[in-house]
Amino acid sequence: MVNPNSNDEVTRGIDAALEPLRFAEGPQIACMTLAEGPFGVETQADVEAVTLPLARLMRETNDTDAFVIACYSDPGLHVCREATARPVFGIAECGVLTALSRGERFGVLAIKDRSIPRHLRYLRQMGLMDRLAGERALGLSVAETASGASTLERMTEVGTALRDTDGANTIVMGCAGMAAHRARLEERLGIPVIDPTQSAVAMALGAVALAP
Amino acid sequence: MVNPNSNDEVTRGIDAALEPLRFAEGPQIACMTLAEGPFGVETQADVEAVTLPLARLMRETNDTDAFVIACYSDPGLHVCREATARPVFGIAECGVLTALSRGERFGVLAIKDRSIPRHLRYLRQMGLMDRLAGERALGLSVAETASGASTLERMTEVGTALRDTDGANTIVMGCAGMAAHRARLEERLGIPVIDPTQSAVAMALGAVALAP
Amino acid sequence: MVNPNSNDEVTRGIDAALEPLRFAEGPQIACMTLAEGPFGVETQADVEAVTLPLARLMRETNDTDAFVIACYSDPGLHVCREATARPVFGIAECGVLTALSRGERFGVLAIKDRSIPRHLRYLRQMGLMDRLAGERALGLSVAETASGASTLERMTEVGTALRDTDGANTIVMGCAGMAAHRARLEERLGIPVIDPTQSAVAMALGAVALAP
Amino acid sequence: MVNPNSNDEVTRGIDAALEPLRFAEGPQIACMTLAEGPFGVETQADVEAVTLPLARLMRETNDTDAFVIACYSDPGLHVCREATARPVFGIAECGVLTALSRGERFGVLAIKDRSIPRHLRYLRQMGLMDRLAGERALGLSVAETASGASTLERMTEVGTALRDTDGANTIVMGCAGMAAHRARLEERLGIPVIDPTQSAVAMALGAVALAP
Amino acid sequence: MVNPNSNDEVTRGIDAALEPLRFAEGPQIACMTLAEGPFGVETQADVEAVTLPLARLMRETNDTDAFVIACYSDPGLHVCREATARPVFGIAECGVLTALSRGERFGVLAIKDRSIPRHLRYLRQMGLMDRLAGERALGLSVAETASGASTLERMTEVGTALRDTDGANTIVMGCAGMAAHRARLEERLGIPVIDPTQSAVAMALGAVALAP
Amino acid sequence: MVNPNSNDEVTRGIDAALEPLRFAEGPQIACMTLAEGPFGVETQADVEAVTLPLARLMRETNDTDAFVIACYSDPGLHVCREATARPVFGIAECGVLTALSRGERFGVLAIKDRSIPRHLRYLRQMGLMDRLAGERALGLSVAETASGASTLERMTEVGTALRDTDGANTIVMGCAGMAAHRARLEERLGIPVIDPTQSAVAMALGAVALAP
Repeated sequence: MVNPNSNDEVTRGIDAALEPLRFAEGPQIACMTLAEGPFGVETQADVEAVTLPLARLMRETNDTDAFVIACYSDPGLHVCREATARPVFGIAECGVLTALSRGERFGVLAIKDRSIPRHLRYLRQMGLMDRLAGERALGLSVAETASGASTLERMTEVGTALRDTDGANTIVMGCAGMAAHRARLEERLGIPVIDPTQSAVAMALGAVALAP
Repeated sequence: MVNPNSNDEVTRGIDAALEPLRFAEGPQIACMTLAEGPFGVETQADVEAVTLPLARLMRETNDTDAFVIACYSDPGLHVCREATARPVFGIAECGVLTALSRGERFGVLAIKDRSIPRHLRYLRQMGLMDRLAGERALGLSVAETASGASTLERMTEVGTALRDTDGANTIVMGCAGMAAHRARLEERLGIPVIDPTQSAVAMALGAVALAP
Repeated sequence: MVNPNSNDEVTRGIDAALEPLRFAEGPQIACMTLAEGPFGVETQADVEAVTLPLARLMRETNDTDAFVIACYSDPGLHVCREATARPVFGIAECGVLTALSRGERFGVLAIKDRSIPRHLRYLRQMGLMDRLAGERALGLSVAETASGASTLERMTEVGTALRDTDGANTIVMGCAGMAAHRARLEERLGIPVIDPTQSAVAMALGAVALAP
Repeated sequence: MVNPNSNDEVTRGIDAALEPLRFAEGPQIACMTLAEGPFGVETQADVEAVTLPLARLMRETNDTDAFVIACYSDPGLHVCREATARPVFGIAECGVLTALSRGERFGVLAIKDRSIPRHLRYLRQMGLMDRLAGERALGLSVAETASGASTLERMTEVGTALRDTDGANTIVMGCAGMAAHRARLEERLGIPVIDPTQSAVAMALGAVALAP
Repeated sequence: MVNPNSNDEVTRGIDAALEPLRFAEGPQIACMTLAEGPFGVETQADVEAVTLPLARLMRETNDTDAFVIACYSDPGLHVCREATARPVFGIAECGVLTALSRGERFGVLAIKDRSIPRHLRYLRQMGLMDRLAGERALGLSVAETASGASTLERMTEVGTALRDTDGANTIVMGCAGMAAHRARLEERLGIPVIDPTQSAVAMALGAVALAP
Repeated sequence: MVNPNSNDEVTRGIDAALEPLRFAEGPQIACMTLAEGPFGVETQADVEAVTLPLARLMRETNDTDAFVIACYSDPGLHVCREATARPVFGIAECGVLTALSRGERFGVLAIKDRSIPRHLRYLRQMGLMDRLAGERALGLSVAETASGASTLERMTEVGTALRDTDGANTIVMGCAGMAAHRARLEERLGIPVIDPTQSAVAMALGAVALAP
């Protein structure tokens, strides 16, 4: 799992969130920070800045059976797939696919409003709009989302709107750094809440375990 | 994992195919045959015959954290989800979702022509038609598919048409009983070949491991 | 016409609503109650409980030229079509198709909120989402809907929201038991209101009259 | 029923095809030829030439409960609906809607290749593309289609391609003048063949009978 | 450029709005009023009234390299394309296409509510619904829109709702007579505002300049 | 106009193809080669390599009113739009949009098979799949396409398949370097052939001329 932003704290948070997927004798799950990455991936320029470093990393990494790009914009997914014959997973794609296996329509919790057009564009690209209930933003920074005391309150409020106004039966957290809130948010909303990094690593785990 | 047909040999084949997903200290994966099921699920009547027995089974099973219905028509998926609060996965849904994480467009290898309209109807229901390259049938019985000597030849031939004529970048095997051929077919075609039962169990594994 | 729930009063209501379609020397229209059905079809389990009884009924009925399943979930439609060579109509499908012949976009009046995801799933399956304006629930029981004094008030209120907020140009009543309110609701809303059972029987009438 | 072309022989053919829908004490079904119409509606200019005459006819006709426009391009459908408060049906719309009630995917038998883009454009307008298997042309003139001795042979050939190559489970005859071949073509192909004028009049019959 | 309504003031307004597209030695841009047109095109009957006069005009005009129909319903577009081998552009089509080159999702400013179903039907026909954010009406007459003092206020108000409530990133003015407000509305809203007549003439200019 | 590959000959070819859009007193059209670009943009890595250089170029260029990215993958389109407030056009987007203004369904002439999945993904992203007739590859290199003697033969052959087998009514040339063949190909095929770079510059010309 590669965190394309250079914020090690986010990487450590993800690493902790993946603990339940580490099984004795199962595939090893290693988390790394992309040194070249910006501190946060918030703009399209941030997205573009990491595509080639990610591809290079994957081309040069020979002891890994599958890769996960841990940013909800799936930066560089296609160039990485071109760079290596091994499977590469993006957390946005896997988060949405996993949500589709858990409920009729999904809602997305974005961090900022300005990400929503980018996310919608990407959902259209994936051909996965038909079961979108809606996407709404928290209006917080990535840093606040990870650590802020009132983040869970805000997530509950926005998640409730996704569920009750938009008709979502499941929620995708639209950021790699929200995992710490997943279980409590799910409990409050009463519908499945998907952490996309966990989903992507779980799918990668399956791909690795099942490879010939 | 429940095999809704009553053919124990199919269940044993699935059980063997899931071996790579059994990790020390990981979730246990148990396979059972639905006693009430028909010998094969080939018609819509076969599908309907197993929906309520599956729901009853899930309602009455309290020591299981997630269920997988191992038939490519996902019989009873929604009634089972109503019957239990725990996650229920269908192999057709999970097979297609997994294929979407591995390539641009997917092809489906059906066993018989008459299943194709049913599968297309279900793909429309799931809102997952946009990346379908095509579906083609082997023209074999379920029994022949599982064991026939020439099955791999026929799968290669039809898979090649899906890849080269229809433009599929990944193949979903549209039956629970084809797992034994997966690795060799993937090798021959040079594109990912997805066994949907393996995919569904991998997704269930993630859901169980990540539950609060 | 088969009412898959075992509530004879609903069957009698439908029977009365079909009176205008009985013509001298025209096809006979008979209404029956499915003895094995639940008292109301409200859950997915209720839906599944009637699929095989309906198929058996149709397979064993030889003096009927076409069948109509009078429940807005179209339970068993495809297994019934497999069971008989004669045409089988579902009232949800026919109600929506008829609405499409009467206005630009249609709204659906559901009885309960929990039916809406099931209905949306089915609309997607039929490929008929493109002209859906919206679906809204009355929040009443089937029994209240059929007989309650204030039902028409509530239907008018919800129908008005479908028309004015969602942009519906025609309304489909999403239940077999609402026929008694159709004419008055249409008068109040000023746009076509479709009773799906009447629509399905009218389409069946055409199919029977026009068969070779 | 108004035939927008001025070919009385086509009108008489339609009139005969509607005989089974005339019931004692049922709604009367009258067929008329639009005097202002071209001899055949083959081009977009022919379509436009009849829209206002049709609207005028409907605005000035007070003793009719519903109208059917009997041309597979549904010329003037929306201006006619604006001109009268009574229901107006187009045969293309009703033919496709009826086909959707009879099979999973429909094929369309056009008369000429050049009509196909116009028909596809109209299917998109109606939001009814999702279940289209394909459209293929006979390559005959309207006159040949109605009367030519070898027409049935050609229809069988093209219908077989729609069924076997394109995967159609039902066929819509894309012209008002093909009714005489319907029953025999259905018998040869073994799947429902829909005459759209009959379908539209059947739907109109339902609308009239069920009006308050 | 043909204004299909017979209001010369609208034609003069369009003519002025096209001034920036007149280049020395560039293609000449001439604006004319369709003498046979109604004073405003507000109903479907108005649309139909101008289709054949437009086609005749184009068939009989030999000194023009491309045509633009300046009414947001694109009346007669397809019959005109049949009538001449030279390119014919409709302003609704070109306005939406141009909007798609300027932002993620577009909103449409209609003049009256009753035009919205017609516009949606046409967007579906063009296959261009996927990036529609929404359409909202000013509730003004064509005359008020062109000249009314408070029109810009009302356009700003409705444009703001399209931007903030519906998520539009660009606005298409859904009428040929709004050009005078374009620049100020764009300034107020801070997102591109498209005058469709200007867009269509710009596309026509390209087609003419680039013709062999 | 920026050619993101560093092949000056391609830039000169584009420059010549834009001659007809240069009007006395009209906007100036300047063509430049991106120095940092690869010699050809053929892979996803080539695409990613030019996104940030293009964005930097646009951010630092202050004397330009609009930009065109002249590569049929529209590399960096969204990051460039973020980098400058002035309009940025991609030739793939503009080529398809222009094709939609000229015919019912479009076909795309790709250079190589491996580009087709990338193009389809992008068409889905733009929400512009509904009128795609098909895409077929020439199987030539970019260099051969620009200069090869037999290129026109091959383009005619593939264009004929798009027109006659796939039903395309217009053709988009899926590469910036095919302009020299446009007029002759259009003459041979008898349907509009769109050079996307010309289309994009024409749309940019409109945007510049019409800016406030």
